[in-house]
Amino acid sequence: MASKGQYVSVVDVEGQQVGDFLAFNAHDMEEHLSTNHTMASRSKMIPSVGDVLLTNYRNPILEVVADEVGRHDMLIAACDPWRYLYDYGVEGHRNCSDNFLEALSQHGLKRHQLPQPINLFQNMGYHPDGRLEFKESVSRAGQKVVFRALMDIVGAVSACPMDLNPVCNFRVTDLKVLLTDRAP
Amino acid sequence: MASKGQYVSVVDVEGQQVGDFLAFNAHDMEEHLSTNHTMASRSKMIPSVGDVLLTNYRNPILEVVADEVGRHDMLIAACDPWRYLYDYGVEGHRNCSDNFLEALSQHGLKRHQLPQPINLFQNMGYHPDGRLEFKESVSRAGQKVVFRALMDIVGAVSACPMDLNPVCNFRVTDLKVLLTDRAP
Repeated sequence: MASKGQYVSVVDVEGQQVGDFLAFNAHDMEEHLSTNHTMASRSKMIPSVGDVLLTNYRNPILEVVADEVGRHDMLIAACDPWRYLYDYGVEGHRNCSDNFLEALSQHGLKRHQLPQPINLFQNMGYHPDGRLEFKESVSRAGQKVVFRALMDIVGAVSACPMDLNPVCNFRVTDLKVLLTDRAP
Repeated sequence: MASKGQYVSVVDVEGQQVGDFLAFNAHDMEEHLSTNHTMASRSKMIPSVGDVLLTNYRNPILEVVADEVGRHDMLIAACDPWRYLYDYGVEGHRNCSDNFLEALSQHGLKRHQLPQPINLFQNMGYHPDGRLEFKESVSRAGQKVVFRALMDIVGAVSACPMDLNPVCNFRVTDLKVLLTDRAP
């Protein structure tokens, strides 16, 4: 939970760790960060410093105030049990959707109510012919991205446990989330 | 409403008309076509013939069986009152979200429950640096895209009334939706 005006920093502790990030209006969980509305209104797939991210009602919810990495993703759905089962043949794999449901359990969200996350430090290749390429993250140990909350938010970050494609370079490490009153 | 096995054709009657398309599991409206899950599992932004599109639970919901155009979009949020108001300064403009809410009113959906649509005939430039470009549709009069329903679906198509950027070449025309038992 961050109050309007506070700063949320997500630090990639060891490097190359993708972090799925959700943010909701703390006073109305039906309003949330929407990457699809943000992409449409901003005409870009990768948020960068100065960008104001929007909710599903196109209200400003977060501003990117610092970014030491420069490659993030807003297209790729959070991993879930079926991502691992259908696409990789692995049953019972830890996944971001279950992480979110646990972290947000006090808000009573069901799986179909989880919005599309912004995938911090996820380095996708966007090819003009429409091809998507899951590439190794370019973030290095200690690098961070910082947001300023533009409304009171409920947020959640999941260190993505995807170890079956290159996005986290086939390992899973920690992320650190900091909440501060001043820009870090 | 289409039954499993039926074909849904969307015909661009006059050409260059974008059509936003939603599809729900007819037996559980909480499950629906999810472009973000489809993009993740298919590693592509533009669906093409043979592609099976997925729901938010990664179940097959539609197969693309014919496509005379080749450029569609799965990223851009449906237009809504705020798209026109905030991004173009126009109040009260007709929009796809309101069209969907009216067309689906018997199902009691609220705005925050509208999923991300697939935007048929929408020709976006996807640039490797993340830039998105709203380009003129390349579809010509009479061209169509055809889907086979892989489950019983409730569907809705909105002829996008966006006349303030190039996607529909600054005019709004009709789309025809056909439901058939055999491939057209």
